[in-house]
Amino acid sequence: MARRRVIGIDAGGTKLLGGVVDGDLMVEHRVHRLWRGEDRREVIDVMADAAGEARAGASDVAAVGFGIPAQVDFARGVALASNHLPLNGVAFREVMAERLGLPVAVDNDANAALLGEMRHGAARGSSEVALLTLGTGVGGALALGGSIYRGRDGIGVELGHIPIDLDGPPCPGRCDGRGCLEALVAGPAIAARGEREAREDSSSALAAELAEGRAITGAHVTELAHDGDQAAMRAITETGRLLGIGLVAIVNLFAPQVIVMGGGAMRGGDLLLDPAREVVAERALEPARDEVRVVAAELAEEAGMIGAAELARDLEASK
Amino acid sequence: MARRRVIGIDAGGTKLLGGVVDGDLMVEHRVHRLWRGEDRREVIDVMADAAGEARAGASDVAAVGFGIPAQVDFARGVALASNHLPLNGVAFREVMAERLGLPVAVDNDANAALLGEMRHGAARGSSEVALLTLGTGVGGALALGGSIYRGRDGIGVELGHIPIDLDGPPCPGRCDGRGCLEALVAGPAIAARGEREAREDSSSALAAELAEGRAITGAHVTELAHDGDQAAMRAITETGRLLGIGLVAIVNLFAPQVIVMGGGAMRGGDLLLDPAREVVAERALEPARDEVRVVAAELAEEAGMIGAAELARDLEASK
Repeated sequence: MARRRVIGIDAGGTKLLGGVVDGDLMVEHRVHRLWRGEDRREVIDVMADAAGEARAGASDVAAVGFGIPAQVDFARGVALASNHLPLNGVAFREVMAERLGLPVAVDNDANAALLGEMRHGAARGSSEVALLTLGTGVGGALALGGSIYRGRDGIGVELGHIPIDLDGPPCPGRCDGRGCLEALVAGPAIAARGEREAREDSSSALAAELAEGRAITGAHVTELAHDGDQAAMRAITETGRLLGIGLVAIVNLFAPQVIVMGGGAMRGGDLLLDPAREVVAERALEPARDEVRVVAAELAEEAGMIGAAELARDLEASK
Repeated sequence: MARRRVIGIDAGGTKLLGGVVDGDLMVEHRVHRLWRGEDRREVIDVMADAAGEARAGASDVAAVGFGIPAQVDFARGVALASNHLPLNGVAFREVMAERLGLPVAVDNDANAALLGEMRHGAARGSSEVALLTLGTGVGGALALGGSIYRGRDGIGVELGHIPIDLDGPPCPGRCDGRGCLEALVAGPAIAARGEREAREDSSSALAAELAEGRAITGAHVTELAHDGDQAAMRAITETGRLLGIGLVAIVNLFAPQVIVMGGGAMRGGDLLLDPAREVVAERALEPARDEVRVVAAELAEEAGMIGAAELARDLEASK
């Protein structure tokens, strides 16, 4: 049975990735955009333009799906609070359907990535799944009983804002919490931890970078850890253990069969995940801790786009 | 429309409360039992006997519902891991239906209490609800989208085992975690905090009790706090703030409209809840923190029995 093509657009806080996806998950007519996202009209223009470009290359496009970095009222297709893009209150589905002349579906970007991983990636066949994206912040999504759990009107499911250290540092995000996962394991926290380790170990490659006056980033620390620098490895190990405490909360609450890890910090791979897995094995409740797999996203950078395309496909199928 | 009577049995770790409940929530033929719960056969005998006693007083009983202190596979009616009673693996629904000659429903006791509060108590009309019971341990239940969320085959939803202090004390329950809510706000933690405060304030009533060689319990600390003893009040306030951090996790994840608090520690009332509410207002995410109400269970000790009766009523209605 031939299925019509759909467009999936994964619109992150700083960049956009999209393409035309066919029934066999072949992606064609890829589009990329970078933006600063300061102006609402510009952001919508860029998204509409990118979808238009992808569509121009393909015939027979049935619908367009978007993943956007905002809380989304999925039933109404309205963007709610967003950290990254000025889309608060935008009737996104309606506006974009009007612009494109096609049916449009829209969801939170982490929800879209989770949908992609559930249908075609690391979470195939699982009913309870958590997805965490570790980047500048910590995003997350949750599937319960086989369906994406979108919270009450899109509010909640803030996996990055589980407090795990009651006296921890203030959360840098739009959050007045302390010791949230985001405050402890996102990029800036990795960078700060790397810097601290560097100051304590003047022979490390990290210390050499500091001495040269270079700013240490999370990506930097991850890279040097892969190169075997001990200070960088300690910073990543400690980050992994803190991540593990957050995973304990998730395991004890949801008993997921799989926790899918994505985002830039996943370049740390098992250097980051192994300490997290150890903490889960040590501290989480049985039997859930024995059943959960903690794995990297299989679709990697494309999970959001593929998931957004699945949203469009669901729209088409429901007609 | 007359509705037939049902029996609700709330079987806790040390005591049982049951009764015949009619369509107007009138409870008759109440039964009480205490037990030590060491032997599986004895526990089942006591429960069956209690249900039989309630039934003997009433005509026209249609079904029996049980809330039991165990993980329960609700769909199959099987008791899974239990802290308190030796019921692991018991096909409870089947065994009890055979014993009683009536249709039987069984669920976790906190789920039953939540059902009671949602239909007839503090959570009427709410779709996202958390219930926490603070006693010797910390139990919990969750409603998402208007229905009890029972986790995957009854595993998960361990609200008492959310870690909020990564270097906190080991959890005393069947849990290898540290700094779980249960380790920080259950009765033994309140007692330990009271003892610490007493040692630092020799003029306190708590210190006087210690000096007399009396063991300090959580109930004790709560009582003296109500009497205005400063050391006891500090212990309850600190407990409330720690509870509040756990509630931040719950609010950020589920954005409940209401969090219902039950269990023995709720004798602390607003002395306990006000500090928790303050922490939620300070630290949880908007808009969820502004929308959530943190309230005492309305049905108090009877929530579990009323909820168990509702389980029986649902069974009857589904026929």
